[in-house]
Amino acid sequence: MGGWHDLRIDGDRLCQRLEALGEIGAVHGPNGERGCARLALTDEDRQGRDLVVSWMADLGLAISMDAIGNVVATRSGSDPTAAAVMVGSHIDTVRTGGRFDGNLGVLCGLEIIETLDQHDVVTRRPVQVAFFTDEEGARFAPDMLGSQVYVGALAVEEALDVLAADNGARLGDELNRIGYAGPTPVPAASFPHCYAELHIEQGPVLEQEGITIGVVTGVQGISWTEVTIVGQSAHAGTTPMHLRHDPMAVAARAIHELRLVAGYLGAPQVATVGSLTLVPNLINVIPSSVVFTIDLRNTNEAILEGIEAQVFAACRAYASDEGCQISMRTLARFEPVEFDDDMIDLVEATAQRLGHSTRRMPSGAGHDAQMLARVCPTSMVFVPSVNGLSHNIAEYTTPADIEAGANVLLQVVLAHAFE
Amino acid sequence: MGGWHDLRIDGDRLCQRLEALGEIGAVHGPNGERGCARLALTDEDRQGRDLVVSWMADLGLAISMDAIGNVVATRSGSDPTAAAVMVGSHIDTVRTGGRFDGNLGVLCGLEIIETLDQHDVVTRRPVQVAFFTDEEGARFAPDMLGSQVYVGALAVEEALDVLAADNGARLGDELNRIGYAGPTPVPAASFPHCYAELHIEQGPVLEQEGITIGVVTGVQGISWTEVTIVGQSAHAGTTPMHLRHDPMAVAARAIHELRLVAGYLGAPQVATVGSLTLVPNLINVIPSSVVFTIDLRNTNEAILEGIEAQVFAACRAYASDEGCQISMRTLARFEPVEFDDDMIDLVEATAQRLGHSTRRMPSGAGHDAQMLARVCPTSMVFVPSVNGLSHNIAEYTTPADIEAGANVLLQVVLAHAFE
Repeated sequence: MGGWHDLRIDGDRLCQRLEALGEIGAVHGPNGERGCARLALTDEDRQGRDLVVSWMADLGLAISMDAIGNVVATRSGSDPTAAAVMVGSHIDTVRTGGRFDGNLGVLCGLEIIETLDQHDVVTRRPVQVAFFTDEEGARFAPDMLGSQVYVGALAVEEALDVLAADNGARLGDELNRIGYAGPTPVPAASFPHCYAELHIEQGPVLEQEGITIGVVTGVQGISWTEVTIVGQSAHAGTTPMHLRHDPMAVAARAIHELRLVAGYLGAPQVATVGSLTLVPNLINVIPSSVVFTIDLRNTNEAILEGIEAQVFAACRAYASDEGCQISMRTLARFEPVEFDDDMIDLVEATAQRLGHSTRRMPSGAGHDAQMLARVCPTSMVFVPSVNGLSHNIAEYTTPADIEAGANVLLQVVLAHAFE
Repeated sequence: MGGWHDLRIDGDRLCQRLEALGEIGAVHGPNGERGCARLALTDEDRQGRDLVVSWMADLGLAISMDAIGNVVATRSGSDPTAAAVMVGSHIDTVRTGGRFDGNLGVLCGLEIIETLDQHDVVTRRPVQVAFFTDEEGARFAPDMLGSQVYVGALAVEEALDVLAADNGARLGDELNRIGYAGPTPVPAASFPHCYAELHIEQGPVLEQEGITIGVVTGVQGISWTEVTIVGQSAHAGTTPMHLRHDPMAVAARAIHELRLVAGYLGAPQVATVGSLTLVPNLINVIPSSVVFTIDLRNTNEAILEGIEAQVFAACRAYASDEGCQISMRTLARFEPVEFDDDMIDLVEATAQRLGHSTRRMPSGAGHDAQMLARVCPTSMVFVPSVNGLSHNIAEYTTPADIEAGANVLLQVVLAHAFE
């Protein structure tokens, strides 16, 4: 088949679907922000799933639902033996989520299929659109849970037993409750020919550099650690400095060092302390304990291991200096993922052929694509996030950028679908 | 009158009163700790006040209650025109309080009076026992509220309008509710001849040095500041370090510097960050804001002003470096107080005459005595705190030390009561 290079998606239709899905669990901000709260396996998630599945059915797709609630819709190709080209993402959100994170990738898949239908395009390979359960991990840890189970990185029995952070409900029970415990076995019996995912950047780099398409080369490795330092609560006025065992002093020294080390290492190293809790948290009492989290990310596993070692050693040394006890607990640890070189080249070449500025970049956030990368050639297409915001009801990407990214994804899909 | 040098209090009786008062609002810890929660003007505070007032009445004292709820009980002297020797403290506690802080000073006053009664001692001057409202400031800021109003350092109208930190109740309404809004005007129409207060050290110094009696030379100046730093919440994985406005990084740098500066200055400088709150406090989100408190204390006003200037400038500079907004709010500021030289000498000589080891020391904590020092010669007697603990249900002082301190206070009172 010729002429598919000129096929284009309908940006308005895609944005209308984004709007409609975003109205389920809608959150409206004081300054016109239009966010979304559809935590995994809640009633809102069910309503969102129902809407997307109804669209899949309207498009005549073959819908399969697996034992962890992942939904895969298939548009047949001319060769019944060929492995499919899959696109997808997730439709669950964080509590203070936007309407683009995840949803864009799934609805772009529907838009691609509707475009193919409209132009009576018959591909050799099937084209699949998937949404994976609980990508955010906001209600059930770990994140990317559904795609992990899909590729066999996490046992389904273990995943079904995860308890909800909000109300302690068991994941498997919630899945049954909302009617999304499907019959298809996991891990999947066969995997796609390749996988591509359109996603918002969720960071400020593309906008800052005035670039439309991020060509995603992989996903940073992630190291999440919870640090607990226990000292001795005492009166802030009557306890001389040399007799103190102050866990906040240890934490401040360690967090300051963490920031310096990340600065010395330079990009792409990032380091964040986003959570810190003092006990008893009173102005005139030296704290008895502090619990804080360290989020470290790098594309290079060796460097990531290096900064972990350096920072953890500093925490231990500073705790010892202060006469405090320290314990550290790994909350999550993913090695960096490198996407397939040919897929990366294809995304880049396609975006440039469509006239867009491009930039190769790692993803700083985790995505279902990094799980799919274990089983098939994978890449991602990033589009800019206004003000770099995500996981925020002010999350926004312009219709022009959405259309640009969706057309890149369409062309990437077609390049493989006729293979 | 002769022979009063040999008068001694009854330590068991004093400890029994401490136990009985401590049972009101009692808090029991898992390791046998026996603490107390009688926040100012709560039902528990009322019950505590009622018990102490009933003891005052049993001793036949003339009880006056003033407009801010301070209670002063008077044992007459032989000279109806002579100003009284006053002892006192407070009976409110913090939420995680012990049974000695404050209570010891008030109940020691009752014990002194019962000892005088028992031995038919007639003093020239009246002897007064006072408890002052809301010394802790834990429910109604500022602390030492009642004694401030008593001496005229704080207008009663302003004090009555203070709102409770726990439920927003107005202090004046709570005072009425518990029946302790008295008729005696404030500030007091006349002030005592002198004031002396027995108190636990609330710190580790006496115990560390093996000393029984702390001769208190004054009270450290106190500077309490709330620092608010506002940055930009963003994704911890996708936001490069150089594009961040991370208020936690600013706070860590400033808190680390604060600790270093306090160390350089050396004793008696102390510096504490006891409270810190991050928003939104999530592992993978750069915080949008941090609020933390700085507690600075020194006996030297010039040095205290110096460290304030240095630390506040550092906070502003580090916030600016990070592109964050900063605001600072003074929560409390008391200049250092120096007690009366003759009263200090008297406490020291008395303790040594009774055979106790002594150490001159400033108080690191605020006390009602520092307000009384504005209107009459004042000093304090400290006794050791086991493990330096206070504002803690494990707060403890041995019966032997309590008896030693109470006898020093008795003899100090008598030295002035016959003048």
